[in-house]
Amino acid sequence: MTETALTPVTFTPGRWGSPESSMHLSDSVRGALGFLGITEPAPTPVPLDAVELPVCRLEGAALDALRATVGPEHVATDHDARLARLRGFSTPDLLRLRAGDGADAPDAVVAPATHDEVLAVLAACRANGLALSPFAGGTSVTGGLAPDRGRPTVSLDLRRMTGLLALDPVSQTATLAAGTRLPEAERLLAAEGFEIGHFPQSYEGATVGGCAVTRSAGQSSAGYGRFDDMVVALTVVTPIGTATVGTAPKSAAGPDLRQLFLGSEGAFGVVTSVTVRVHPVPAVRRFTGWHFPDFATGAAAMRALAQANIRPTVLRLSDEAETGLNLANPSSAGASAVTGGCLMVVGVEGDELDVDCRERYLTARLAELGGTDLGTAPGEAWRAGRFRGPYLRDPLLDAGALVETLETVTWWSNLERLKGSVTAAVTDALGAQGTPAVVMCHISHVYPTGASLYFTVIAKALDDPLGQWMRAKQAANAAIRAAGASITHHHAVGTDHRATYLEEIGDVQLTALRAVKAALDPENVCNPGILLP
Amino acid sequence: MTETALTPVTFTPGRWGSPESSMHLSDSVRGALGFLGITEPAPTPVPLDAVELPVCRLEGAALDALRATVGPEHVATDHDARLARLRGFSTPDLLRLRAGDGADAPDAVVAPATHDEVLAVLAACRANGLALSPFAGGTSVTGGLAPDRGRPTVSLDLRRMTGLLALDPVSQTATLAAGTRLPEAERLLAAEGFEIGHFPQSYEGATVGGCAVTRSAGQSSAGYGRFDDMVVALTVVTPIGTATVGTAPKSAAGPDLRQLFLGSEGAFGVVTSVTVRVHPVPAVRRFTGWHFPDFATGAAAMRALAQANIRPTVLRLSDEAETGLNLANPSSAGASAVTGGCLMVVGVEGDELDVDCRERYLTARLAELGGTDLGTAPGEAWRAGRFRGPYLRDPLLDAGALVETLETVTWWSNLERLKGSVTAAVTDALGAQGTPAVVMCHISHVYPTGASLYFTVIAKALDDPLGQWMRAKQAANAAIRAAGASITHHHAVGTDHRATYLEEIGDVQLTALRAVKAALDPENVCNPGILLP
Repeated sequence: MTETALTPVTFTPGRWGSPESSMHLSDSVRGALGFLGITEPAPTPVPLDAVELPVCRLEGAALDALRATVGPEHVATDHDARLARLRGFSTPDLLRLRAGDGADAPDAVVAPATHDEVLAVLAACRANGLALSPFAGGTSVTGGLAPDRGRPTVSLDLRRMTGLLALDPVSQTATLAAGTRLPEAERLLAAEGFEIGHFPQSYEGATVGGCAVTRSAGQSSAGYGRFDDMVVALTVVTPIGTATVGTAPKSAAGPDLRQLFLGSEGAFGVVTSVTVRVHPVPAVRRFTGWHFPDFATGAAAMRALAQANIRPTVLRLSDEAETGLNLANPSSAGASAVTGGCLMVVGVEGDELDVDCRERYLTARLAELGGTDLGTAPGEAWRAGRFRGPYLRDPLLDAGALVETLETVTWWSNLERLKGSVTAAVTDALGAQGTPAVVMCHISHVYPTGASLYFTVIAKALDDPLGQWMRAKQAANAAIRAAGASITHHHAVGTDHRATYLEEIGDVQLTALRAVKAALDPENVCNPGILLP
Repeated sequence: MTETALTPVTFTPGRWGSPESSMHLSDSVRGALGFLGITEPAPTPVPLDAVELPVCRLEGAALDALRATVGPEHVATDHDARLARLRGFSTPDLLRLRAGDGADAPDAVVAPATHDEVLAVLAACRANGLALSPFAGGTSVTGGLAPDRGRPTVSLDLRRMTGLLALDPVSQTATLAAGTRLPEAERLLAAEGFEIGHFPQSYEGATVGGCAVTRSAGQSSAGYGRFDDMVVALTVVTPIGTATVGTAPKSAAGPDLRQLFLGSEGAFGVVTSVTVRVHPVPAVRRFTGWHFPDFATGAAAMRALAQANIRPTVLRLSDEAETGLNLANPSSAGASAVTGGCLMVVGVEGDELDVDCRERYLTARLAELGGTDLGTAPGEAWRAGRFRGPYLRDPLLDAGALVETLETVTWWSNLERLKGSVTAAVTDALGAQGTPAVVMCHISHVYPTGASLYFTVIAKALDDPLGQWMRAKQAANAAIRAAGASITHHHAVGTDHRATYLEEIGDVQLTALRAVKAALDPENVCNPGILLP
């Protein structure tokens, strides 16, 4: 981990991440855009201070009640505060903001500092007929920050609730306040010799609470697991009281109700602290590139490793299109070091003996499975640029491109079919609008029984890029559903995936979820419209 | 796997497992019993046909309705049929049966053959005001087969619902009918080159459905995971309809509701099929014994391996007392090959390269951690006797001993404290009744953040052995709760652990569970009193 990877970034509206990290398109990328007919830049975005927000519906007694919970200095209703919690970072979110649409803004922002203050804010919301929507990293890409606006809505900003609350070095668990951003968490833990090892692409801004309620998955999931695998306990403020969930690593004491709150996206309450598994900072980290002749051969190799007893820490396979554009190394996008075929990144972290034993196995297997060792350069290049990908989007949008990502997950036997049908659905939906598209894909999360697919789509933006993308997204959702895959592997449901999600889970599961919602949040105060309609 | 390990056993009332496998006490065990004052055999058990069952409350229209669902030949109300589904195999269950107490018997036994027949039986139960209690392996040790008898109760015997319904060799998943017993499942899969690798002590009788709803853990959990980790999909008949749960290996599409049905113990409905992760039958299986000077050193070594990236398939550590009595090799109980200290069994399964790489790592680490390699003899002896332990109980009860097991799970940092306080609680509770006890313990399931503790208790049986044990068990439950551990690692809740379980989960989680129960089973037809009061 470099020092910069330990500094959290406050995301500002409309552009991803840290302004110092913003990217410019290389000539080769600009050249590639020409092939898609992308020659005219996008209209200049509406300035942020000109974005129109709905009139704030909070005043008088309700506002006083909120001020009494956290102190007046931590309650804001001004334009900038509301704008900063308006939506997340999906391309539709960015397009709406660029067009000056602030319709989803909360009425007020309230920033508690403690668990007890969250309890008090929630009580004040109940007493005053308000809705409450937790806000932390602000990096949602599925409409998870845009609840129904039927009632005045409080954006509960958790970013004052930070810190390492407890570390158990023997059990290797750490309890962190929910608003702790991942780089801050890693910095605090590194000082004690530990790390979480959770590296989603939103790492710079994402918080531990946000990762818990959205079932986030990070780039080292092959080695350290998804975030929902790492969480061993949670504290949740629900409207009926505080739940402390997670007595032991695993147990047979009824259903594992940690899994009821993980993925609940704030619909059952507010997670205030999270206890996660940690591990000693690895002494050795080695990232290697492997070349495979084609995606099918590479995917078969991914599967063989995912189904083996010895696994790498990071495993990532770009398809031919993504390898060609070199998206695994965003800073050199358009200038691929690999000619033809597919690039796999294999990272192994641990102590010396551990890494030696695992590399001995992995090297033998990968060669046997048709891979060619490219050495550490492509692996280290990927590692250095691992959080850079999303920074490419803003200049691409500026340049007149429509660019977005989407993801899904299925069983291994269904993976190629799913990849084909989603690619075809998106390509056809955009093609039907007159805009040929490049659809690239990678596998970055593997399980013994299946894997995720992560698609990046680029086409020329039309006059109504939002409507243009929505048609493509709808086609993708339908293709995912038709293939029997899950609507999301790690982006969560929010409002964007809700309709497809309800089809995916069916009536009985929906009835169970609604029952939990009604029992824990009888007045539908918590994130109305998120996850459940 | 030997051939006998692929043959399921129909457990008959009152004695564990297959009659051909019954055990006799060696002279050394009999000698050891003398030290505990156990010299007089127990009273002769009441003959099975003299066990008094409550009058069957099912007749007329209700019985006709049940007969219409599965055919009259699959509905039984006779003494033997009801007796065979009376309770499970806890020591209290056995003591009640030995005393002739048949009070918990179901009113009728209904054996469906298909998912649709289960739907029909459940509908008939609703229509006629009956309760329904699923029965499969019959090996519960927590009162999981003794629901409230407030209404006439149907024991739904699932053992006609067997078979491998689907195998996906690419994704390495297998769908099995819920009533398939584990040896049958392994036999069917072995014919296709695969295995589940789930080996609980109840393996010979347990079913895949039973393992799912109780969150079973098997002896190879270090390598292949617990059963709830292995399950990727479930089909459940609930009173409001069929739920098909599990779209993908993992996803971020809301809470993972597989975990709502896993561990639900039949309270939300009847699991009719289970899709589990499988793996190719390992080419190599090597089991080795390691000696550690004491439990603390051995436990620290277990922890180091559990927290490493390379893990064995089986990992088991007996404490000094259990090592002394040689319980890891039940056929030679009382004649330990290891003098002093603690025996660890380390099993590694996989292909040649995999096992070589892992053994290289494990051997180096275990030596570094204070272990002495005892070679394969103690490991293979453990493997050969891995399902023999429970067979010792019946002759011990016959001989006048009170013998029972109990288990719990906690974080590593809490493990020694928990072991001490449970041991003291049980020893004191029995000692206070004038019966000195031997309390032995092993760790057989490890996680990066903690481990299970499995206790075996032997004392002299008094005139009221049931009351005698209940006092000890209550003391153990209180000690577990006071230590903040979970009331059960893999035995489940049933009725025996219910009170402590409710304390463990607290009000908010209980409210959520009750809401699910009320929504899916509004008339409380399914296993009333099991899991939830």
